[in-house]
Amino acid sequence: MLKVAVVGASGYTGVELLRILVGHPEIEICCVTSRQHEGVPINQVFPSLSGFCELVCEPLDVTAISTRADLVFTALPHKSAMEVVPGFLAAGCKVIDLSADYRLKDQSVYEQWYQAHSSPELFDEAVYGLPELYADKLRAARLIANPGCYPTSVILALAPLLEKQLINLKSLIVDSKSGVSGAGRGVKLGSLFCEANEGFKAYGIANHRHTPEIEQELSGLAHGDIRLSFTPHLLPVNRGILSTCYADLLQDQSTEELIDVFQQRYANEKFVRVMPGGQLPNIAYVRGTNFCDVGIVSDQRTGRVIVISAIDNLVKGAAGQAVQNMNLMFGFNESHGLGIVPIFP
Amino acid sequence: MLKVAVVGASGYTGVELLRILVGHPEIEICCVTSRQHEGVPINQVFPSLSGFCELVCEPLDVTAISTRADLVFTALPHKSAMEVVPGFLAAGCKVIDLSADYRLKDQSVYEQWYQAHSSPELFDEAVYGLPELYADKLRAARLIANPGCYPTSVILALAPLLEKQLINLKSLIVDSKSGVSGAGRGVKLGSLFCEANEGFKAYGIANHRHTPEIEQELSGLAHGDIRLSFTPHLLPVNRGILSTCYADLLQDQSTEELIDVFQQRYANEKFVRVMPGGQLPNIAYVRGTNFCDVGIVSDQRTGRVIVISAIDNLVKGAAGQAVQNMNLMFGFNESHGLGIVPIFP
Amino acid sequence: MLKVAVVGASGYTGVELLRILVGHPEIEICCVTSRQHEGVPINQVFPSLSGFCELVCEPLDVTAISTRADLVFTALPHKSAMEVVPGFLAAGCKVIDLSADYRLKDQSVYEQWYQAHSSPELFDEAVYGLPELYADKLRAARLIANPGCYPTSVILALAPLLEKQLINLKSLIVDSKSGVSGAGRGVKLGSLFCEANEGFKAYGIANHRHTPEIEQELSGLAHGDIRLSFTPHLLPVNRGILSTCYADLLQDQSTEELIDVFQQRYANEKFVRVMPGGQLPNIAYVRGTNFCDVGIVSDQRTGRVIVISAIDNLVKGAAGQAVQNMNLMFGFNESHGLGIVPIFP
Amino acid sequence: MLKVAVVGASGYTGVELLRILVGHPEIEICCVTSRQHEGVPINQVFPSLSGFCELVCEPLDVTAISTRADLVFTALPHKSAMEVVPGFLAAGCKVIDLSADYRLKDQSVYEQWYQAHSSPELFDEAVYGLPELYADKLRAARLIANPGCYPTSVILALAPLLEKQLINLKSLIVDSKSGVSGAGRGVKLGSLFCEANEGFKAYGIANHRHTPEIEQELSGLAHGDIRLSFTPHLLPVNRGILSTCYADLLQDQSTEELIDVFQQRYANEKFVRVMPGGQLPNIAYVRGTNFCDVGIVSDQRTGRVIVISAIDNLVKGAAGQAVQNMNLMFGFNESHGLGIVPIFP
Repeated sequence: MLKVAVVGASGYTGVELLRILVGHPEIEICCVTSRQHEGVPINQVFPSLSGFCELVCEPLDVTAISTRADLVFTALPHKSAMEVVPGFLAAGCKVIDLSADYRLKDQSVYEQWYQAHSSPELFDEAVYGLPELYADKLRAARLIANPGCYPTSVILALAPLLEKQLINLKSLIVDSKSGVSGAGRGVKLGSLFCEANEGFKAYGIANHRHTPEIEQELSGLAHGDIRLSFTPHLLPVNRGILSTCYADLLQDQSTEELIDVFQQRYANEKFVRVMPGGQLPNIAYVRGTNFCDVGIVSDQRTGRVIVISAIDNLVKGAAGQAVQNMNLMFGFNESHGLGIVPIFP
Repeated sequence: MLKVAVVGASGYTGVELLRILVGHPEIEICCVTSRQHEGVPINQVFPSLSGFCELVCEPLDVTAISTRADLVFTALPHKSAMEVVPGFLAAGCKVIDLSADYRLKDQSVYEQWYQAHSSPELFDEAVYGLPELYADKLRAARLIANPGCYPTSVILALAPLLEKQLINLKSLIVDSKSGVSGAGRGVKLGSLFCEANEGFKAYGIANHRHTPEIEQELSGLAHGDIRLSFTPHLLPVNRGILSTCYADLLQDQSTEELIDVFQQRYANEKFVRVMPGGQLPNIAYVRGTNFCDVGIVSDQRTGRVIVISAIDNLVKGAAGQAVQNMNLMFGFNESHGLGIVPIFP
Repeated sequence: MLKVAVVGASGYTGVELLRILVGHPEIEICCVTSRQHEGVPINQVFPSLSGFCELVCEPLDVTAISTRADLVFTALPHKSAMEVVPGFLAAGCKVIDLSADYRLKDQSVYEQWYQAHSSPELFDEAVYGLPELYADKLRAARLIANPGCYPTSVILALAPLLEKQLINLKSLIVDSKSGVSGAGRGVKLGSLFCEANEGFKAYGIANHRHTPEIEQELSGLAHGDIRLSFTPHLLPVNRGILSTCYADLLQDQSTEELIDVFQQRYANEKFVRVMPGGQLPNIAYVRGTNFCDVGIVSDQRTGRVIVISAIDNLVKGAAGQAVQNMNLMFGFNESHGLGIVPIFP
Repeated sequence: MLKVAVVGASGYTGVELLRILVGHPEIEICCVTSRQHEGVPINQVFPSLSGFCELVCEPLDVTAISTRADLVFTALPHKSAMEVVPGFLAAGCKVIDLSADYRLKDQSVYEQWYQAHSSPELFDEAVYGLPELYADKLRAARLIANPGCYPTSVILALAPLLEKQLINLKSLIVDSKSGVSGAGRGVKLGSLFCEANEGFKAYGIANHRHTPEIEQELSGLAHGDIRLSFTPHLLPVNRGILSTCYADLLQDQSTEELIDVFQQRYANEKFVRVMPGGQLPNIAYVRGTNFCDVGIVSDQRTGRVIVISAIDNLVKGAAGQAVQNMNLMFGFNESHGLGIVPIFP
């Protein structure tokens, strides 16, 4: 059994990792950490876990954890992650980092959108953890940078079109909507029930930190420099991201032709479900699961393609994708622990 | 006191008209109709109205109503409206029609997106009821076609840019999100709580019926032919529409310059609030009111302007705008009955 | 025009006071305070207020405010209120206090459930601000202790039964459910969207601080000592309290007879709506308004009466009732500023 | 592999049965029926099931289904169920009926609360499917009457107190709150999003059909005749029932003593989690799972015990319990298919 530590277990990503990992047949959770809840059983922090995981929260001691764990999931905010990741690696652990700290390849871009970085020497080694793009590299990785939630939804929606060079690279517009858990479990005014419920707004227009991550990956797929407009919105639901992506088609294509491109591209991907013509994704259809549902429409009046993708931001957008990456990293069945059926309604 | 009839009072638009009209100082509600609830007091249909309006629902008898009413609000589905509007006009009533039946100027466009029309001879006379564009015509109108909810939010968001010729007409993309009351009070699967709650989806991509209405009005403002991509989404809230509008700027403009354009355009409009730099609209800030809040951002990385507008779909998107139109039509203070303060949270 | 100050304007009770007061014909808001937002216009804190109230938040300076205000609404937490109320009174202002600090008549009970009190000498003078019970005293009051939200809903539900001595005093059970705004605008884990949404729980069983307030008032009505079981629950909605109250009837009474008792008791009360037989209250029917809707059922199988009351916790449970109290205190029409029609849906 | 048919697959109970059954290691779903969606793949009705179950909906043909299925789950409304259950039994199938048709033991009670019954001769044979009470009988059953959702939550909350004779049988009051999925997937006004969202109300006071079912089972446990007050409420969430149960204690007991009674009673029950002192159930902690969480408080001021139970109405209140019953009926591990971890948030 692989020994796994979850560092930062008391956030929404942490509890989601535990929800998935307790059902995984090949691993054992050896340690959970939480600064805020040190000494408290995790099932007291999250009573939902009672009967499944009752470990006591430990402080984040890199040395102590390294002796017990083979793999560490770091579910910490950016900047906090870089303070511990090099230590875990040096001590021989493998690391799947769910923060933004190792996702960007260009230090100057990182430092422009975030802050100074203390271990840029790891940028080359870190593998961007999107299995549908980088499965082979992920199998060999020692450090995986688990993608952001928005980038996951956008890259999977646009990859087939970029790989096949079907769209005008200057025309990309992405309008995304995320549930409130995307803001984490930190207590802040904007995350209060009464501030979000029955409300809807855009935020971070033209300056959201996921923009360079999306552009890095799309540019790689397009073999060209992509700049896009990315507008995130806050949706009054617990979970889910829906991204509506617009691009000008280079030549006329029907909806059926475009769906066919996607179905071929994702034929062997277990966690991408391309919807048939006439159906569109709904975040309710992927709730609690690692699926990315994708719907495609050709708007022939305007010459645009509209691609819509839906994920659960805590699963395919975070913890589920991290487990999928773990499965690749350790040669497990890619679906282990992830065979969860969507809960509807 | 002006005698006013509300035809189709048992839908969400109907009850909203009543909510607003009972507080209006210059009118008297003389009649409410509902086929489904004939003979039932309206406050039994909507207990919220107890103490404010306790009229008994009548059947829709054009002759009987015409003898009592000076003005008729028709809050019926399209097609049902055209069956009674000509009769009310012939009997000497003025009419504010909240359906789509008299909004389009081109009969063939109407019939392509809806169905055959039985009184196209009224198209010329009907005035499109957007007071911020057509106040003078509305003062003289006998028949007002109250705009659709989505079109209201989109036209107010884009009018200043089109009037000033600041954007590329081929680049328009509108990504809109509406609360569930936009689907009306009819009982259908997609409007069930469990189908919409904790869900989010697009619908009617590239073929929503509000598209030609939006294009007609924007084309008029632009003195040119506009085709845009319009994608509506279903938001799990009771009320509110937020439209995120994208366009390529013809030349570089800062956010401040663009906000200035909007503030000048709407300086004398009581129901448009242009937000200062750094603030963005939220449907929660206009709830229950006739306001359209507008926020503008220049995305200088991509050369695009992003305009966001928020309305309450039942108020500025329907009943409130209808009352604003009535105020113009009869020479009342434009704000009468509409001085409602947004309810937050 | 009466000069009114709102102390503690940046909480949900504060913004609700402003929402109501800006529409009041006899007063002028002369000052709003907020420690947290000092120097910021209140409409930047709450963009919903733009166009209605744009005062800049001041620090809480009792001396400075007293020279300008005739009446002060203190919308502060308990304990903070008692630090300023005596000063405002000494300076000649009248005060309506929305905290719990002056509601209880017995200092030892206050100190058992809250903490030490620094101005118990005001307990005798403070009038409990429930107009349906104490209108005459409120007209003459200098200091009004505005009731708690739960107590308002419970006392109005049970007063007619206690006044008419129809129920067994030992049998009272109250099961209440409140929307999340009842917890205030402070940032705390339990008020986060993801913690409350799609959840439901009881809290404070057998020890909620509103228990002694309810018991004090019900005991007064019953001329006897009442102890009851009071169980509050957290409801995933913004606003509203519904209290389901159970009591053993002393003798058999039909639903109709009981409704008649309530209708007579509240015949002259503008803000209590007794529902006819077959209808039951819903928090949705009172949203945004000062109404308390009451429904009564006789359960003849068990010999119990079940009374259900619904209020908007921020209006009849806080700000609206405070304005109703102000109207009595200053001889205004009791409904001024409170003629708001419920917003449904 | 056991061959299983799901009759009435297109309701919320049906889709929930499928969600659970597709993960069950010992069975194979051989047939799904839906009158409304005949000929349509079930994953088109519920896109959430894509990749898990893609059977085509069949009409309800008892003969045809009987030849293929060993076990039939009837997820039909009451009255519809009794039309097919005898036929399935006669053809040699076992049946787990999720309707109310075989839950009551007394035909006259059934006919008083529902309507005439066409196969009362099965009442004696049908086993009430609450495994925590009747595991032995369920192992031998041919026809299982799966309990109602409210009764499940109430009986599990009160059984330990009644078995130990700790409470006054005349004092029972149950205040229950259910999510909207409890009303089914039928299209009706009260289930619309805008009617339920941001609302809360009681319904069916003193006459809800689950009352006799609750009383039958509690009376059996108490060896005496129990009548209680049962008040259901409609909660604006998709899933979950929370029941708050009040009873007078026959003698003083502390919270700790009472929790101990419950922990002993349920020590060997996999799906009942008794919460430790200081913790209370929340429907969010059982979402998607077969757990019943129970919290107990002694209110020593009033001499009452308050027991709170939380279940997912679609799982422990319907489909999950049905699978638990199947596991007993066929000698499978009682937890098979039900090892789902609660999804929070």
